[in-house]
Amino acid sequence: MSRIKSQVRVVGAGLLGTSIGLALTKLGIDVIIASQSKASAALAIDYGAGRAATDNDDPKLIVVCVPPDITATIVARELKDFPAAIVTDVASVKAAIFEELKVLGADAERFVGSHPMAGREKGGAAAGRADLFVGRPWVVVAGDSTIQSAINLVTDLALDLQSIPIELSAKEHDRAVANVSHVPQLVSSLLAAQLNRAAATDLNLAGQGLRDTTRIAASDPKLWVQILSANAAEIAPILKNLKADLEQTIEALENPNNSGSLSKISEALLQGNRGVDRIPGKHGGRASHYSQVIVMVEDRAGELARLLTEIGLIGINLEDLKLEHSPGAPIGLAELSVLPESEAKLIKDLTDRGWRIA
Amino acid sequence: MSRIKSQVRVVGAGLLGTSIGLALTKLGIDVIIASQSKASAALAIDYGAGRAATDNDDPKLIVVCVPPDITATIVARELKDFPAAIVTDVASVKAAIFEELKVLGADAERFVGSHPMAGREKGGAAAGRADLFVGRPWVVVAGDSTIQSAINLVTDLALDLQSIPIELSAKEHDRAVANVSHVPQLVSSLLAAQLNRAAATDLNLAGQGLRDTTRIAASDPKLWVQILSANAAEIAPILKNLKADLEQTIEALENPNNSGSLSKISEALLQGNRGVDRIPGKHGGRASHYSQVIVMVEDRAGELARLLTEIGLIGINLEDLKLEHSPGAPIGLAELSVLPESEAKLIKDLTDRGWRIA
Repeated sequence: MSRIKSQVRVVGAGLLGTSIGLALTKLGIDVIIASQSKASAALAIDYGAGRAATDNDDPKLIVVCVPPDITATIVARELKDFPAAIVTDVASVKAAIFEELKVLGADAERFVGSHPMAGREKGGAAAGRADLFVGRPWVVVAGDSTIQSAINLVTDLALDLQSIPIELSAKEHDRAVANVSHVPQLVSSLLAAQLNRAAATDLNLAGQGLRDTTRIAASDPKLWVQILSANAAEIAPILKNLKADLEQTIEALENPNNSGSLSKISEALLQGNRGVDRIPGKHGGRASHYSQVIVMVEDRAGELARLLTEIGLIGINLEDLKLEHSPGAPIGLAELSVLPESEAKLIKDLTDRGWRIA
Repeated sequence: MSRIKSQVRVVGAGLLGTSIGLALTKLGIDVIIASQSKASAALAIDYGAGRAATDNDDPKLIVVCVPPDITATIVARELKDFPAAIVTDVASVKAAIFEELKVLGADAERFVGSHPMAGREKGGAAAGRADLFVGRPWVVVAGDSTIQSAINLVTDLALDLQSIPIELSAKEHDRAVANVSHVPQLVSSLLAAQLNRAAATDLNLAGQGLRDTTRIAASDPKLWVQILSANAAEIAPILKNLKADLEQTIEALENPNNSGSLSKISEALLQGNRGVDRIPGKHGGRASHYSQVIVMVEDRAGELARLLTEIGLIGINLEDLKLEHSPGAPIGLAELSVLPESEAKLIKDLTDRGWRIA
């Protein structure tokens, strides 16, 4: 049963608006889909995300799901048009929205910032899905004047969508996403950009390392330029630290025989080890707490299923699974992550069953 | 049947030496395992990688699998000790090895450089596996004076290990790996290093993007400092280009309201799009040619197997599979990559079978 009982108005019918509409509609909630783009709204409604607006609508909660650069303007309009409603947004930056609302003279008591940490590489209503937020963090950001009932209602929204609400201040949120999302995005883009200067034949030697480090460089520039510029104040200082470290490394590489050069390079690598070790793994644990077992899988339908069926029979739960495949190879490598205490049994039992293991 | 018929001497009993020994032994070849570390050699021999050296050994091929900083010295010694043998190495940099051999006055006619593009995050004899090189590129590098029969023999070695031989000059190789491996390694390390300055709570918002971009920052600093310093001449210019791009981005972020700032940020993101699009995907195609279908999978033994079994029954071949899992969530997301023409059928048939899809 849903926590939210009242009508919900969703403004914007892209990936997030459509997904929220789909999820709430499934819970039996009366969802209104409004969008400046009539075509997007019609598409989202066709998909089952809600119904069109009417003159008699009386939403208690409004979720503004529009691009970051117009979020504050639309939030202010909704606060004005629906003077009894609580309004939230979904933009990936938060302090800038509160500042703009102040400038616009909006009634910010009824506004709560939201940042659902979910997304897909594809956007648009057609990419929407009811399960988009399941198990993902949903950051809830109250302003100085936000009333408690507004915070509670938005927290209920997050819980109804099966996400995990986390309360942060706008500053805390913006600093956190600069560290874990915005800087990695820019660095991945800048790294991938260097490949434009490489010979095409160089790229034939590309392995998983390059693919992993540049995957998010495929993200949408139109959306990201808004996010990055809105959070520039938090991102720039981190990039300046990175630049200082990069300069030290370049200097060491240009003089590899100077005393201290090797230890500078080594230190950069060690600090990288330490940094990656701080990232929480699955189930809140540390990623490094799992053992990896690599199994050869022939590249044909059903082989991976057979492997996983047999792992199920052995009775071991996979913590993670990754399939690696080299260009042109008839065989893939399934990297299975399991609890360390399961590793020996998994290797033995799979070998007994004829699988080729690392 | 193996191409190589003669005795092979492997010097060094770490991950690569042990793996080569295991694979050749499986092919029925007489493999000698030699190592300055008696313990490593004994361990590799215990694992079945070969036998101990004797006074009567007469290897036709010697594979030197020692750390990059001592590779040239050991290669020169082996060339001298075995004046009829062809010698190759496995170091991830090549020009530096040829230069050192010249300085050492080695008989470089019988030397061929090798770089098998395979590895694991774990090192040591215990991590060795016969299948390590299957389907991976194996770069074969001839020097100015290398004789053709030496190149042929090392190419046979690569083929016997089921890897894909690629002939490059030392310069071409070093430039290529700087682009696809060494620079991504350093950038990933430098990015991860910035996390040491972040609050621990910031990292609770970490998603797949941060995990992917920093995964290789967990690599071994001792090995990498040797690789990076030996290839410094190729790496430094690429890092300088990256630094120039980074400076432009920082300047734009520090003045987001200046004319031209947004277009500079946007250009960096667009160049990233273009760069990542140059990386060859699976089967030599482009990664972006596949469609992604995301399926919800409950986090318990057997569920993923059931999904893959049903995909097998539907008759669709997975091009790639990735399992995403958020901390604390009872549900994982299986991202299935399939040929675009299979996407609609896969979604329909899985939905009919009760799976929850994007």
